[in-house]
Amino acid sequence: MLVVMNAQATQEQIQAVCNHIEQMGFRAHPLPGAQRTAIGITGNPGEIDRGNFEDLAGVADVIRVSKPYKLASRDVKEEDTIIRFPGTDATIGGRNLAIVAGPCSIESREQAFAIAEQVAAAGAQFFRGGAYKPRTSPYAFQGLGVEALRIMAEIRDHFGLRIITEAIDNETLELVAEWADVIQIGARNMQNFSLLKHAGRLRKPVLLKRGMSATLDEFLMAAEYIMSEGNYEVILCERGVRTFADHTRNTLDLSIVPSVQKLSHLPILVDPSHGTGKRDKVLPMARAAVAVGAHGVLVEVHHQPDKALSDGAQSIYPAQFAEMMDEIERIAPVVHRTLPRGIHVETAVAGVHDGKRK
Amino acid sequence: MLVVMNAQATQEQIQAVCNHIEQMGFRAHPLPGAQRTAIGITGNPGEIDRGNFEDLAGVADVIRVSKPYKLASRDVKEEDTIIRFPGTDATIGGRNLAIVAGPCSIESREQAFAIAEQVAAAGAQFFRGGAYKPRTSPYAFQGLGVEALRIMAEIRDHFGLRIITEAIDNETLELVAEWADVIQIGARNMQNFSLLKHAGRLRKPVLLKRGMSATLDEFLMAAEYIMSEGNYEVILCERGVRTFADHTRNTLDLSIVPSVQKLSHLPILVDPSHGTGKRDKVLPMARAAVAVGAHGVLVEVHHQPDKALSDGAQSIYPAQFAEMMDEIERIAPVVHRTLPRGIHVETAVAGVHDGKRK
Amino acid sequence: MLVVMNAQATQEQIQAVCNHIEQMGFRAHPLPGAQRTAIGITGNPGEIDRGNFEDLAGVADVIRVSKPYKLASRDVKEEDTIIRFPGTDATIGGRNLAIVAGPCSIESREQAFAIAEQVAAAGAQFFRGGAYKPRTSPYAFQGLGVEALRIMAEIRDHFGLRIITEAIDNETLELVAEWADVIQIGARNMQNFSLLKHAGRLRKPVLLKRGMSATLDEFLMAAEYIMSEGNYEVILCERGVRTFADHTRNTLDLSIVPSVQKLSHLPILVDPSHGTGKRDKVLPMARAAVAVGAHGVLVEVHHQPDKALSDGAQSIYPAQFAEMMDEIERIAPVVHRTLPRGIHVETAVAGVHDGKRK
Amino acid sequence: MLVVMNAQATQEQIQAVCNHIEQMGFRAHPLPGAQRTAIGITGNPGEIDRGNFEDLAGVADVIRVSKPYKLASRDVKEEDTIIRFPGTDATIGGRNLAIVAGPCSIESREQAFAIAEQVAAAGAQFFRGGAYKPRTSPYAFQGLGVEALRIMAEIRDHFGLRIITEAIDNETLELVAEWADVIQIGARNMQNFSLLKHAGRLRKPVLLKRGMSATLDEFLMAAEYIMSEGNYEVILCERGVRTFADHTRNTLDLSIVPSVQKLSHLPILVDPSHGTGKRDKVLPMARAAVAVGAHGVLVEVHHQPDKALSDGAQSIYPAQFAEMMDEIERIAPVVHRTLPRGIHVETAVAGVHDGKRK
Repeated sequence: MLVVMNAQATQEQIQAVCNHIEQMGFRAHPLPGAQRTAIGITGNPGEIDRGNFEDLAGVADVIRVSKPYKLASRDVKEEDTIIRFPGTDATIGGRNLAIVAGPCSIESREQAFAIAEQVAAAGAQFFRGGAYKPRTSPYAFQGLGVEALRIMAEIRDHFGLRIITEAIDNETLELVAEWADVIQIGARNMQNFSLLKHAGRLRKPVLLKRGMSATLDEFLMAAEYIMSEGNYEVILCERGVRTFADHTRNTLDLSIVPSVQKLSHLPILVDPSHGTGKRDKVLPMARAAVAVGAHGVLVEVHHQPDKALSDGAQSIYPAQFAEMMDEIERIAPVVHRTLPRGIHVETAVAGVHDGKRK
Repeated sequence: MLVVMNAQATQEQIQAVCNHIEQMGFRAHPLPGAQRTAIGITGNPGEIDRGNFEDLAGVADVIRVSKPYKLASRDVKEEDTIIRFPGTDATIGGRNLAIVAGPCSIESREQAFAIAEQVAAAGAQFFRGGAYKPRTSPYAFQGLGVEALRIMAEIRDHFGLRIITEAIDNETLELVAEWADVIQIGARNMQNFSLLKHAGRLRKPVLLKRGMSATLDEFLMAAEYIMSEGNYEVILCERGVRTFADHTRNTLDLSIVPSVQKLSHLPILVDPSHGTGKRDKVLPMARAAVAVGAHGVLVEVHHQPDKALSDGAQSIYPAQFAEMMDEIERIAPVVHRTLPRGIHVETAVAGVHDGKRK
Repeated sequence: MLVVMNAQATQEQIQAVCNHIEQMGFRAHPLPGAQRTAIGITGNPGEIDRGNFEDLAGVADVIRVSKPYKLASRDVKEEDTIIRFPGTDATIGGRNLAIVAGPCSIESREQAFAIAEQVAAAGAQFFRGGAYKPRTSPYAFQGLGVEALRIMAEIRDHFGLRIITEAIDNETLELVAEWADVIQIGARNMQNFSLLKHAGRLRKPVLLKRGMSATLDEFLMAAEYIMSEGNYEVILCERGVRTFADHTRNTLDLSIVPSVQKLSHLPILVDPSHGTGKRDKVLPMARAAVAVGAHGVLVEVHHQPDKALSDGAQSIYPAQFAEMMDEIERIAPVVHRTLPRGIHVETAVAGVHDGKRK
Repeated sequence: MLVVMNAQATQEQIQAVCNHIEQMGFRAHPLPGAQRTAIGITGNPGEIDRGNFEDLAGVADVIRVSKPYKLASRDVKEEDTIIRFPGTDATIGGRNLAIVAGPCSIESREQAFAIAEQVAAAGAQFFRGGAYKPRTSPYAFQGLGVEALRIMAEIRDHFGLRIITEAIDNETLELVAEWADVIQIGARNMQNFSLLKHAGRLRKPVLLKRGMSATLDEFLMAAEYIMSEGNYEVILCERGVRTFADHTRNTLDLSIVPSVQKLSHLPILVDPSHGTGKRDKVLPMARAAVAVGAHGVLVEVHHQPDKALSDGAQSIYPAQFAEMMDEIERIAPVVHRTLPRGIHVETAVAGVHDGKRK
């Protein structure tokens, strides 16, 4: 159920409708748009009488949302969601391509800085690196943990790059939220509903990777879990699905990009590194991701992939990353997009670079 | 790495080897077998010199384990693992078929008791019911929580049935471990490695469902995560995988049963309810599961499936459950198995039926 | 569209209705049942006025068939189709389990006779062997061709076994129809519609294997292709589908058996040899196939699998075949089936054993 | 096995080596390259002594080919195969993008000409249209047959467009080879080995579509079947594979493009129409196909898709086709390709436009 306000509705009228909803025992989600504010109602309001709202001041219309996801749906919010990073010009969603680059795992300060320097030089705005690694084997390298978070905070201070890193449970979620700019939820946790709900209670953007065998509906429903708790800054990410095909580690399903964009206002990135598992397939698929209309790409870069503690075979060299940037910059205009090069950080904000960001 | 002890090795000798392993910075996992004890070593001991152990008293052999999973492997423990439930004659693994039955969700005391009475009468030894439900939609019924755990504890007191229920995160894990006899980890959490590790630190049997697109290796590695923390009582459960096929909700992959049994000593059950998603396919697939050699089946039973709050379409009626029991009882001898009917609880233990079990 | 005749309708009345249908430019398919005859109409008769038929003598009802397949549907023919082999007591469909056994390829007269002798001794009624092999590589053994057909005709003469072998194109179809008792159409040709239509014009039973990624609807539609040309003796066969799972060569989808049986009157067999690709999985899955309710199994048997020119790894030994027969004989009664042992051939028919059968 | 000739080897020396191979009972496949000719040997020559060839005049080297496919492999022919159309400047393979457009089925002369006119105007060089349709249902429109071939020959005469159409069995293969410029073999026939071999004996280019669940190896082996019979002009085409994903009809696997290009010299096109099954996904995926490096695209265009007899929902409008051409023209240079606009036909050849081409 969705209450659409008049274009002229005042903030007080919006608040009054929200209060009315909460008094009925449901949850109100005001979603401001360019023209008007819509208010999503969650909490099984299937049987609410529309008449409850139609007479309230400022209400233009009351509509039923037929999709199982509501807050993630374009029915509820027509404009694309653009996620902004205060104090910088970086965005995810909208016309600017977002490029996220970095190693699979943070292995040491030296390794992380060496890679960060090169991806920053090539124009990346976001740095990724694993602090907590969900590994198939309990005996494999599990990440440096908080130490890695600290290194990445230093990288943010030094290069201005915004930091994206994965949380693997409710405990690491708190830590990641404290230190990073975007919380990643990995493919294996896409339906870890407890984790999704906890992430929904935070006020940090969440990058949600598609599960290995998730349908489009399940993917959007996972986003809805986060949004239903009040965190509307969700970034989707296609990273390949599991099929019979054996020439790549996963089958990168680029058709999900226009499919998501038709149904949802949320931004969607593509990860060609996990999506293929092979270094020589990353650039072709990154180009294809931009051509299909993705809001950006997320790639693994390592200066010494042969020595990487995880996923070396799919990490590209810094020189390849620079080549990729040149290629996608040329494709971007065809899909009405632009590739920003580098990040601008306001001095005032840069001044609070103390390793933590609230 | 695996240290195999002599058949005559004393408890002191076993302990001495364990101490030696721990002093080297690794972890020792003594695994008693019918003939001899083997001691698994975890913690990346790839490069340990065998000579370190060969001279210790009681050591028969030191062998490398080539599989990525070690503690779950038959290389390390040849005999089938049989999980026992103190104070009762119930087992999972071995010759006796384990039958787990009950509703998808505990909806009320009345509903749970009505179903429990009928499955107990038909001879089930284990009762299943969801207290915490991982639902695709955040707006769907999420389970009664602790209230459901309490109802199931009453059912254990009243009918003697041992209780299996799902934990969905580290918080509910503690609660489930406190109230239930077996902790279920669902398909969506099969690679929630944080949850697996926490479950590994408990001393309650864990029923681990195969992920929707998990390979055999990944399934056994998930079990290994639990075992690597010291909890060796893991029960595997096939519940269907995701394929292109659309005549059933999932494709139940029965061939995984003999495949697991070849590589691992852990028991494996089959869930034909989730595996097909259709009531009229449950009995045929339950029969097939027993014929293929599974250690038991896990089925959803509801006395009023049309009114079920979740998964009604795949729940069988109590009368169908009784029919299923008769059918599998007749198939069991072909695979050298027996179907026990009902559970025997020792009075002394029954006396401490206080709603909790340590 | 289906015209259902009265139970008392005469042959003349049935013929009159068929003539009426053909005069309208459509095709009539009289399908005799236990109680009454139904007449299927094909040739896009979507818009025919029911009134055209309701007044004809002997017509009880005229019903629309909503499924895309008509002749294969239970709506059109309620009773199970049972395929009989004149001059013998062998059947496929109905209460008697049909067991088809033999080598992947006929390699020599000696090899074929050695295997046939042992499967006949264990009670098989049908012998399978490849004369024309669809091999992934053009450089692999492609079968002995007509020579193999001759050897199998000798085997029929000598052991009484009915012969099943694969045709791979319209040319080999004629030859196989001439020499064998059942024409097999392989998984790779399940949607070779030209071949299906040609097979539909013959009057020999056709064993149709499910394609590697065929849905249930596509499977039944492929059968419909054969039936729409007038050949109603179609036997379906599940042989595994292609999924991400890598512990078996294919994923044997046993749930298709009850799914087919609900929608269609055609018999369905299961091939656990191709379905798993591994010798040690054949017996467990054959047992499961019978327990799920299949009308029989089709297995590869070789006396020297290590020397087989194709698919040795999935062929079972004759002793294992005998063991399988014992096991499924014990499971059969649970699903109201019987395992006949051996085939009885009438002398009169046996006398025309001249290597060809019309 | 592959005999590599000296750069200076004469035609006589090449012929002498071929004769030598044939005398040994094998088949010789001379494959001229830019620098040197290589001669593939097929017919199970695994155990040939290299010494048989090393002493022949003009032989530089004798190498074993480890891949199961040989003639399709880059090991055997390093340069990309470029297929030329005599009397025109059209090519498939190499730097020029090949654009194939037209309706799913030829429905009438008017329909075909209306569409051909618009795709020619927008710059297509190849026209596709179904004459023989492999339809899932025997009751669906099966194509106009020879009538459609005649219409397409007229379109070639009138617009200069080269014609691509599908053959579905050995009979239609002869007809298609007679009338069209490229013979299409559809996804359902990718492993119809009899058809592949027959196509291999013709001297017309063959466009081979990837099967719905074909691995990369199987795809290249199917091409090898055609090539092993002497027809080296094979064009591969990705058209989507079958997975669990339900937001598109198939999952278009663009990663196969660079994977094929690494292993094989054959050109590869992409069909985003069948690959997605949805009109609004065709342009995004066509752009992605060019960006990933495909040699061209094959799209369904219909001027009245709502009235199409088959696959209307995935056909784009002529105006969308023109838009697609503009978009991919801009992406082409990034992958070192060019989009030719229109086809130039030499007058002499144009003069023999008699509806047939040998």
